[in-house]
Amino acid sequence: MTESLLLQNVRPLEGDRADVLVIDGVVKRVGAGLEAPGIRVVDGRNGILLPGLVDAHTHLDKTLWGRSWHRHSAGPTIQSRIADERRVRKALGYSPEEQSTNQVRQAITMGTTHIRTHVDIDTEIGLANLEGVLATRDRFREAIHLQVVAFPQSGLLVRPGTEALMAEAISMGADLVGGIDPSSMDRDPVRHLDTIFAIADRAGVGIDIHLHEPGMLGAFALELIAERTTALGMQGRVTVSHAFCLGMVDEAYLEHLTGLLIDNRIAIMTHGPGDIAFPPVRRLYEDGVTLGCGSDGIRDSWGPYGNADMLERAMLLAFRSGFRRDEDLELVLDIATGGGAQVMGLADYGIAPSCRADFTVVAGETRVEAIMNRASRIAVVQGGRVVAADGECLV
Amino acid sequence: MTESLLLQNVRPLEGDRADVLVIDGVVKRVGAGLEAPGIRVVDGRNGILLPGLVDAHTHLDKTLWGRSWHRHSAGPTIQSRIADERRVRKALGYSPEEQSTNQVRQAITMGTTHIRTHVDIDTEIGLANLEGVLATRDRFREAIHLQVVAFPQSGLLVRPGTEALMAEAISMGADLVGGIDPSSMDRDPVRHLDTIFAIADRAGVGIDIHLHEPGMLGAFALELIAERTTALGMQGRVTVSHAFCLGMVDEAYLEHLTGLLIDNRIAIMTHGPGDIAFPPVRRLYEDGVTLGCGSDGIRDSWGPYGNADMLERAMLLAFRSGFRRDEDLELVLDIATGGGAQVMGLADYGIAPSCRADFTVVAGETRVEAIMNRASRIAVVQGGRVVAADGECLV
Ligand SMILES: [Zn+2]
Ligand SMILES: [Zn+2]
Repeated sequence: MTESLLLQNVRPLEGDRADVLVIDGVVKRVGAGLEAPGIRVVDGRNGILLPGLVDAHTHLDKTLWGRSWHRHSAGPTIQSRIADERRVRKALGYSPEEQSTNQVRQAITMGTTHIRTHVDIDTEIGLANLEGVLATRDRFREAIHLQVVAFPQSGLLVRPGTEALMAEAISMGADLVGGIDPSSMDRDPVRHLDTIFAIADRAGVGIDIHLHEPGMLGAFALELIAERTTALGMQGRVTVSHAFCLGMVDEAYLEHLTGLLIDNRIAIMTHGPGDIAFPPVRRLYEDGVTLGCGSDGIRDSWGPYGNADMLERAMLLAFRSGFRRDEDLELVLDIATGGGAQVMGLADYGIAPSCRADFTVVAGETRVEAIMNRASRIAVVQGGRVVAADGECLV
Repeated sequence: MTESLLLQNVRPLEGDRADVLVIDGVVKRVGAGLEAPGIRVVDGRNGILLPGLVDAHTHLDKTLWGRSWHRHSAGPTIQSRIADERRVRKALGYSPEEQSTNQVRQAITMGTTHIRTHVDIDTEIGLANLEGVLATRDRFREAIHLQVVAFPQSGLLVRPGTEALMAEAISMGADLVGGIDPSSMDRDPVRHLDTIFAIADRAGVGIDIHLHEPGMLGAFALELIAERTTALGMQGRVTVSHAFCLGMVDEAYLEHLTGLLIDNRIAIMTHGPGDIAFPPVRRLYEDGVTLGCGSDGIRDSWGPYGNADMLERAMLLAFRSGFRRDEDLELVLDIATGGGAQVMGLADYGIAPSCRADFTVVAGETRVEAIMNRASRIAVVQGGRVVAADGECLV
């Protein structure tokens, strides 16, 4: 269900004051002094109009947001954190539907209109997390756009039975096939990638692979991914999340890898990790690589960080990138909006006429000030509906 | 002026619910069900009682906090940023007193009770920035404790006349002598350090040196600093701020440098920089090195980051250190409170009887949750006075 709306008194991307007329969920006009008798009017209070914030990578099924505080004590390796997560999941017995609802409501409140979420699929939890997140997706269909990746968090080949579950996940409504560290997790990069590409190819869906593998191991995986993208004609439908290796290889190799990404229109997602190298954002952006950013895990058994605020995420990514100039921070905001929209393959995203009316109005003089202030969200609009205002979720 | 106060219903360091009785600015008792007829009562609303947050390193004189947004466009080197700062200072013509007041009020609101601020001294601005900050220190004497470092931001030897200004700054009321990158800025590490140690020695004050120099160049400066600390008997009175080199040298050299720090009781201040190596926090803490943290520049011509919130600073330092376990985040909070107090040489800091009643009460179930939420500050107390409450500065 979409709505009509006259949003008055906003500054699109901090430009001149304007009004936005939305008819049946679609932007009709953007201009000064618009009138539309009979249509609901909302005052944007001279805020900055941004297209909806896009969280291109999170894990809705495992957040502990909204629960009693969980003390973190897992060891430092990915393997130990995965093991700890299984323990915590059993001990707390939380509901993926309830937890994803908690995070979704927080995200809506903070102005996020689109989320790509990975959802754990394994032989222990089966499809329970997926069912919970799909229920949340249905429930909030009018308020936020959720894209779901079937994610083999605990490995694919090392857990026989996972492959069939992944395929079933897609037929249940997951939008993309996930993957994870094909060498270090599954011990067989070729077979891991062949398996997930085959599932995606059969189902006609895209792919989003978690790639934490460092240095040349990660670079090798990127090459294998690019080869398969070419072979199956999946250009523009593959995302590699994290791709830390892009921040670790030398200049010549980076150029080679960037060429593969561009030729195959493979998108990169980074969340701006705290303590590990990560892709060189400005460099890739200028080379024309599609870049999105995301929260990754929010307050889950992996760690206590995150709050589903994509302005804070933009700040962190810029902070980690050493950005201080306003133009660099605007670039990061572009990644947290239009870049993420490209990653998610959204066709009608933006604040121009004929775009879907998904946007957020934030307080502040400039976009960079809004990032630094984690500015209050005056209004969040989804398909012409006001879904949050002044820090309150209205759905 | 100090006050008496019965602060009820708080959880000291998230321990059991207690009341705190303050008489004439000093903690008298901490316990359950205290009564004190005739004394002002404040309800802590079951918040966590923390000793006052300590911002052990900032630059009050140059923040642009509270002004119209400044677009950043400086180049990437320290030299180009210093040059840009001179340009911006002239173009904006801001008042160091007014600007330091803006930041101090924000800091008080966020629960900071102690600040060590560096203040630019050079042959162009002379002592104007110092005068402004000293006026602010006087004006807020009852609300926050400010310690002032006379800081030769633009170099000491390379700007003849600065040395005399530095000495004058101390006689005007600056508490410590500053220094900066003795090799890369002043081109003569021995003479730079001999000069500032001589000023400090003559005046009987401590030293706090900005050391950004990387790798072995920074390590060499640390050695020279340690030698002079020993020679002048200044153990326990020298701080090195940033000391990025401690995050860059190999294990054997780190052990050697740590030994020098401990032997000379040299404190290290880190703010958790976004994109450069920095001291290994947990390692140094466990070795017994005094560690503080600070905001460094807040929204100044150097960059747009920072908001004077030491809980956010603790989050960033933990994020950069790769900390995920609660015990590691508690360590960082300890650095942002007691560690900073040690850096600043505070004798009566804490929440035990006979300590000065400087503390902050934050909402939340645990300290780590409070960090992650940048929790609301229920009350901020300085010498028994409530100086801020619920996000409002009362002074
Ligand atoms: Zn992830
Ligand atoms: Zn500094």
